[in-house]
Amino acid sequence: MTDKIYVGVDLGGTSIKVGLCDITGKLLHTYEGPTGTEHGADVVLENIAQYVRKLVADTSYDWDQVAGIGAGIAGFMDIPTGFMKLSANLGWRDVPVKAILEEKLGKTVRIDNDANVAALGEAWAGAGRGIPNVVCYTLGTGVGGGIIINNRIIQGNGMAGELGHMNLIPDLEAIQCGCGMTGCLETVSSATGIIRMAKEAVERGEHTSLALIENITAKDVFDAAKSGDEVAHRIINRAALYLGKSMAMIAVVLNPQRFIVGGGVSNAGDILFDAIRKYFDQFAVATAKEGVDIVPAILGNDAGVVGAAGLNLHS
Amino acid sequence: MTDKIYVGVDLGGTSIKVGLCDITGKLLHTYEGPTGTEHGADVVLENIAQYVRKLVADTSYDWDQVAGIGAGIAGFMDIPTGFMKLSANLGWRDVPVKAILEEKLGKTVRIDNDANVAALGEAWAGAGRGIPNVVCYTLGTGVGGGIIINNRIIQGNGMAGELGHMNLIPDLEAIQCGCGMTGCLETVSSATGIIRMAKEAVERGEHTSLALIENITAKDVFDAAKSGDEVAHRIINRAALYLGKSMAMIAVVLNPQRFIVGGGVSNAGDILFDAIRKYFDQFAVATAKEGVDIVPAILGNDAGVVGAAGLNLHS
Repeated sequence: MTDKIYVGVDLGGTSIKVGLCDITGKLLHTYEGPTGTEHGADVVLENIAQYVRKLVADTSYDWDQVAGIGAGIAGFMDIPTGFMKLSANLGWRDVPVKAILEEKLGKTVRIDNDANVAALGEAWAGAGRGIPNVVCYTLGTGVGGGIIINNRIIQGNGMAGELGHMNLIPDLEAIQCGCGMTGCLETVSSATGIIRMAKEAVERGEHTSLALIENITAKDVFDAAKSGDEVAHRIINRAALYLGKSMAMIAVVLNPQRFIVGGGVSNAGDILFDAIRKYFDQFAVATAKEGVDIVPAILGNDAGVVGAAGLNLHS
Repeated sequence: MTDKIYVGVDLGGTSIKVGLCDITGKLLHTYEGPTGTEHGADVVLENIAQYVRKLVADTSYDWDQVAGIGAGIAGFMDIPTGFMKLSANLGWRDVPVKAILEEKLGKTVRIDNDANVAALGEAWAGAGRGIPNVVCYTLGTGVGGGIIINNRIIQGNGMAGELGHMNLIPDLEAIQCGCGMTGCLETVSSATGIIRMAKEAVERGEHTSLALIENITAKDVFDAAKSGDEVAHRIINRAALYLGKSMAMIAVVLNPQRFIVGGGVSNAGDILFDAIRKYFDQFAVATAKEGVDIVPAILGNDAGVVGAAGLNLHS
């Protein structure tokens, strides 16, 4: 075989996932092993190199067919030089990731922010396949995001795609966000935000089945809403309202063809998506929503490796 | 001489302005003549061709040095094919502008939306020179805009950069916009919005020097604010508040290095810019405003021809 293949690395704090994609973004094979964070950057980078070599060796592909290797990592980095300035969850400071991996592997390596990489994965080979301009939301502990324009990740000055910090919540309802500001989208539309609103409703003594649950999760709130609990429904609506409103803003700034929503919260399904679409429709000017849709992410946890594999094709 | 030169066409309803730029975006020579809108598209396009030929003939450059011709036109068009679907102010429908001009002139021609072209002009050779990612606002009758990422105009699905329709104004203060929605930025932060707020204040009988003016202009409101009129100052602050807030949103979506503000209203100077910067600072998360500035446009009416000339260098 002579087809080019692309390797993606999803570097997490506890495990490293590596994957092999063809030129269309089809995930052909994956391998996962421990990160070894506690042993420091040298060991972690050596682990990556070994897992990548094993990944390819386990298939019928030749090492020569590997056309590029990409890695998604959480932290502050300089993309062009692949230099990690600070990664809090890995405990890294000033690590020349690209240079070290290129020396170990003898291939072109590109690194990027993990949220951006996951967005690229969905855009390239997931729910955005074939669409050049997409904006991805990840609804989890916070609200993350990634902006893909003409099939490329938008970095801006380094903070592009931080959608959770759009300042959208009206003063009277705004609470302080982890970033120090008040009014950020993620104070309402993340799992954390949904849980907070549920707990506050229970504490206020509102009539809701959520009062019977000890440690409320976002899933509990969605389940209660699906069962007809009006308080839970109001909370979900509020989370969806500001998501839809943020998309309406982005629709006149970037006007992507598609919004993709992933992360744990997005598993709630229609009850969430129907509400987001309703509010997007309400707040977006007609010409800016024409031909624009809002869909769930489809790659799940594979978005990271797929997007990382795609870094060398979309940069 | 053998240097390449680039021609830009700013096609307005009453006059056509053409300009010659070098490869750095320096405007070397301009010419302006009547559009002849009333004679139809054939005549207008022939006028463009003649003005462009005259423009070059009037200089010491050879026609052979013209490396590309660009045109900024108001209307709905298909950019890649240069096909104008509908231009309300020219009365055009289904005109293959690019094809006709290329045949007449024997050069590569690109067309784009006039607001995007002006943004490209400022980004390339104006207040954004040397900066790859800028977002431009034009404050006039409405609030227009243009998004330049990696030195290229962002089109999205065709409506990118329509910043005036960001839905930002809280319900209790929102009025209906020309687009049919309520709460659009331009209902407050355009010249029209500023004049409206001033007239409403006068009608309410507020204590303001604006009450003595028959036909209030945006400049009157700025002048009154500069003279210490508190009502005028409050109106300017409100216009600036939502501009700053919109920039804070864009700072976590695209994170451009620079916001450029042009158009008639931007001539107000420091009183406007200081207020915009204050509110941007208030609503933008710290990491997203680092290294980001807000500056006035500098090319004035030349932005259109310069940006049009740059279309063939930035596409």
